Amino acid sequence: MTARTVGVDVGGTKIVAGVVDASGVVSGRAQAATPASAASPRDVEDAIVSVVSSVLAETGAAVGALGVAAAGLVGTDRATVAFAPHLPWRGEPLRARLEHRLALPVTVENDANAAAWGEWRFGAGQGESHLVLVTVGTGLGGGVVLDGRLHRGRFGYAGEFGHLQVVVDGLPCPCGNRGCWEQYASGTALAREARARSVRWPPAAAGSPEAHPDARPAALRGEQVTQAAVAGDEGAVALLAEVGHWLGVGLANLAAAYDPGLLVIGGGVAHAGALLLDAARDGYRRSLTGRGFRPEARIVAAQLGNAAGLVGAADLARRLHD
Amino acid sequence: MTARTVGVDVGGTKIVAGVVDASGVVSGRAQAATPASAASPRDVEDAIVSVVSSVLAETGAAVGALGVAAAGLVGTDRATVAFAPHLPWRGEPLRARLEHRLALPVTVENDANAAAWGEWRFGAGQGESHLVLVTVGTGLGGGVVLDGRLHRGRFGYAGEFGHLQVVVDGLPCPCGNRGCWEQYASGTALAREARARSVRWPPAAAGSPEAHPDARPAALRGEQVTQAAVAGDEGAVALLAEVGHWLGVGLANLAAAYDPGLLVIGGGVAHAGALLLDAARDGYRRSLTGRGFRPEARIVAAQLGNAAGLVGAADLARRLHD
Repeated sequence: MTARTVGVDVGGTKIVAGVVDASGVVSGRAQAATPASAASPRDVEDAIVSVVSSVLAETGAAVGALGVAAAGLVGTDRATVAFAPHLPWRGEPLRARLEHRLALPVTVENDANAAAWGEWRFGAGQGESHLVLVTVGTGLGGGVVLDGRLHRGRFGYAGEFGHLQVVVDGLPCPCGNRGCWEQYASGTALAREARARSVRWPPAAAGSPEAHPDARPAALRGEQVTQAAVAGDEGAVALLAEVGHWLGVGLANLAAAYDPGLLVIGGGVAHAGALLLDAARDGYRRSLTGRGFRPEARIVAAQLGNAAGLVGAADLARRLHD
Repeated sequence: MTARTVGVDVGGTKIVAGVVDASGVVSGRAQAATPASAASPRDVEDAIVSVVSSVLAETGAAVGALGVAAAGLVGTDRATVAFAPHLPWRGEPLRARLEHRLALPVTVENDANAAAWGEWRFGAGQGESHLVLVTVGTGLGGGVVLDGRLHRGRFGYAGEFGHLQVVVDGLPCPCGNRGCWEQYASGTALAREARARSVRWPPAAAGSPEAHPDARPAALRGEQVTQAAVAGDEGAVALLAEVGHWLGVGLANLAAAYDPGLLVIGGGVAHAGALLLDAARDGYRRSLTGRGFRPEARIVAAQLGNAAGLVGAADLARRLHD
């Protein structure tokens, strides 16, 4: 088959696709908004078909397969989405539907799994045998590559790190539990704490004692907190350090369990760079068990940005259908 | 080579060996006390050689290799013990030393890893593709089999579950951290809480309002709490339920991360049976993320008892040297 495949990343807010070659290079990228939460499965399917068709038309490339990175629980068949919190999929036979409409072999993968694979093949994890990816965005997700194989688990649901309990009787989580890691280390945590503490938005000049007259703390999003921190807002900088600390504590747990060689941090909040990662490294070192007696996995930033999912999905599709 | 190998489990208190055939059947078991903590590496080596030689002399069996299950951090070379908390090994070249003295090919494995492999091959985990073993003894250890392969990690130290943080700023742990899982779900936790609450020992008749006149709560060990619970002591029963609850909460975290098909509980505290496991199952179900949307890994008792480590180590030695 041709060495080129299409990858498409289907998230809760947008759908991004591109043609990916055997070296992981993306061409002809296109994107569209994900249909609103009241949409039907068919609406989302239509949007995927539209974005993928647009990429194929633009590049004129012959492609051998389509890889889908889906923000949901994907079964071991790599075909069915069992549940997606931000999409209208419940037991959705996505592979069959898309193969029917696009006349291409299709592989479906959880988006964080696909991103982990993408970073391992072409990004921050190249050359590592054991990699754990943690994506810090609105929520907190994960993907794991062990001995060069994607770790999917018995039912396909491995790596649901956002719902590891880190605080007994802690903050409530929409998953139904309390104290989940993603309530402490995510964009949602940043936004919640920023509202409570009146981080200024838009960011005032660093050191200014006055809140900006347009400040609307009730509507703050995590990415605005990150921007405010980068602009020097002291409250936002302190918040990112707190979220980074929680991130590091959880990473120490993942290291105790998986013993990876590398911990890769992706997702939108990772754009804060050292403001987040330095605090994460500090929390990690303080919490890592056996420190001094064992080699320590390094913590690094992801390299593929928001293309990691589509690149990884396209590469997985190439391997499965080659 | 012959289908028979020797397995030896080297723990902090005793050394147990046996000849194991290709079906996992153990013959000619022998054991000795582990030399005291002030002993030298050579003293422990002498004890291992003595126990293994005794087994070989007793069974008269021709064996092809020796597998060692060691209570410590074993490197990816399956040869060197980097660190063992209860043994005098620091960077100990155990494989080379034992091969020199016993004239047999030797493989070294972490004891919980070896036990997980033993349970997967011949015990509670037969037929499962993804198994997590948690051993609840003086401490809490773990081993993981994924897709039929032992998950050892990048440096050989995967599965150090006892030091997952479950309580922020929780009880101090000898590892240097606070809030480690094994401070809440282990024989050590049972004994500590029993002393604080004056569990009666030896156990009085169930329902007796009087503490036994010989009660020595300051010296209680975890196994005595288990015996008191089995005898009906209400305080001991309540303690096992608490420890079981903590066990279940941590198992839910392991399920979110690894997505196994089966969670196997071994170690001395598991002898409490339903007194422990029913509470663990309850805590697990309450804490498991995505419950209702995903298949749930079952929680079962280990089947090989304290032979799991030597059986697993012997089988690993057979595979590596076949």
